Amino acid sequence: MPELKTGGAEKHGKPAARLHVVARLAEGVAVDLDGGQAHYLKSVLRLGPGRHLLLFNGRDGEWLAQITGLSKGHAAASVLVQTREQAQEPDLWLLFAPIKGDRIDSVAEKATELGVTRLQPVMTRYTVVTRVNVERLRARAMEAAEQCGRLTVPQVSEPQALRDVLAGWSKERQLLACAEAGPARPLAEVLCEDRARSAAAFASALLVGPEGGFSPDELDLLTELAFVTPVGLGPRLLRADTAAIAALALWQGLRGDAERRPPSRLQP
Amino acid sequence: MPELKTGGAEKHGKPAARLHVVARLAEGVAVDLDGGQAHYLKSVLRLGPGRHLLLFNGRDGEWLAQITGLSKGHAAASVLVQTREQAQEPDLWLLFAPIKGDRIDSVAEKATELGVTRLQPVMTRYTVVTRVNVERLRARAMEAAEQCGRLTVPQVSEPQALRDVLAGWSKERQLLACAEAGPARPLAEVLCEDRARSAAAFASALLVGPEGGFSPDELDLLTELAFVTPVGLGPRLLRADTAAIAALALWQGLRGDAERRPPSRLQP
Repeated sequence: MPELKTGGAEKHGKPAARLHVVARLAEGVAVDLDGGQAHYLKSVLRLGPGRHLLLFNGRDGEWLAQITGLSKGHAAASVLVQTREQAQEPDLWLLFAPIKGDRIDSVAEKATELGVTRLQPVMTRYTVVTRVNVERLRARAMEAAEQCGRLTVPQVSEPQALRDVLAGWSKERQLLACAEAGPARPLAEVLCEDRARSAAAFASALLVGPEGGFSPDELDLLTELAFVTPVGLGPRLLRADTAAIAALALWQGLRGDAERRPPSRLQP
Repeated sequence: MPELKTGGAEKHGKPAARLHVVARLAEGVAVDLDGGQAHYLKSVLRLGPGRHLLLFNGRDGEWLAQITGLSKGHAAASVLVQTREQAQEPDLWLLFAPIKGDRIDSVAEKATELGVTRLQPVMTRYTVVTRVNVERLRARAMEAAEQCGRLTVPQVSEPQALRDVLAGWSKERQLLACAEAGPARPLAEVLCEDRARSAAAFASALLVGPEGGFSPDELDLLTELAFVTPVGLGPRLLRADTAAIAALALWQGLRGDAERRPPSRLQP
């Protein structure tokens, strides 16, 4: 686990924000921030030139930087010192049937906090929602990644039909399908067994259906595929968003990186 | 685990709703429903007399009933046949620092789905929210209990100061405090150890702090108390609501009733 190099950060004062950028990060580099970030720094946080922030881009780790210019629609920062080395999240995807309203935003936020590397909306027979605002989910995932201290931002893919996703599946990735049907076993039990078998993490995906569940033919398909393990989440019927968060928490706790500690708490 | 006695329910047709009532439930009993429930049945679900619903009261199990009268502000039902025997949820409390807006409602909803028996708002040094609408949390917990198929509704207690809650603590109940400090160990690790030690479930509580975390003196107090086990939830900083849901999911998965299966899916 990369350690927080606190020496550099402390010398320069507590960073007031943490932002994802696309640009390369290295000592002395000047980075342009986008209009939304300029607005956030200037009008929401009321910062000015000279104040410090943390930057990450998913490749070069996390860096302390100093605001050098800040005006309406534009901001620039100078990169000072690396605070954390780059690290990847464990290889975990979430496939989920889109749900209504704020609940889908909440799934994007919480799945990001719980370390997913990819969010894949899947259309199923009983999926009621027909349009997914992927850009909105991407913005929510980005914001959550900035807040929770991740060094990566999860990929948010365009919606696909469940059948198409399954047809193109790479068999090296285990698909844990939260599908309450005959062969389903408790998710924690499956994850504990795997843990005992091998300490090495391996690529996984969790699948959560819509509020109405999977159709009989979808359940048949899921139980036929060798890379699918049907799992259950206990005796209470969980809403789709609750099921997604609960399953991700169990996966990280039992097979992911839950034994790691957070870097020092960010002070907003 | 009580089995769903499907025979009776099938004979009478799929129930269209599931409601909590205060009244005693037994074969042939007439039950008055309250104004809100009458509105829900009549104007939201557009049901009429003769339609079936499920009723539970936390004591007598779940019963199939038939609507006998339905007018503005009043509804009555006749209790037909028991569909499930009474069962209790595992003895798990959630202590949480109140958070803003919809997020606290979401905690009440998801904690109910994840089987808590009591929700206790606790005021801590860094808690920003000063007023808690307990009645609103109760309504949300009730609704979630009706939806998720629970046979009980969790108790929602009035807010209390964390110090007062700790001072009056019964030492038989283990308090797992999500407090990222020196002695914290991964929650999943703690739960797996307990599981290996004894298969019997025992009384627990989970404690989740506010967005700003616990103050240094609160952390000192928590680490001093013998009934407190400080636990961590991995390397990413989780929002308070995410932390609560993740911790509850892990507890149910590893120490709770996650090995049980749901009764047959309710068809709304």
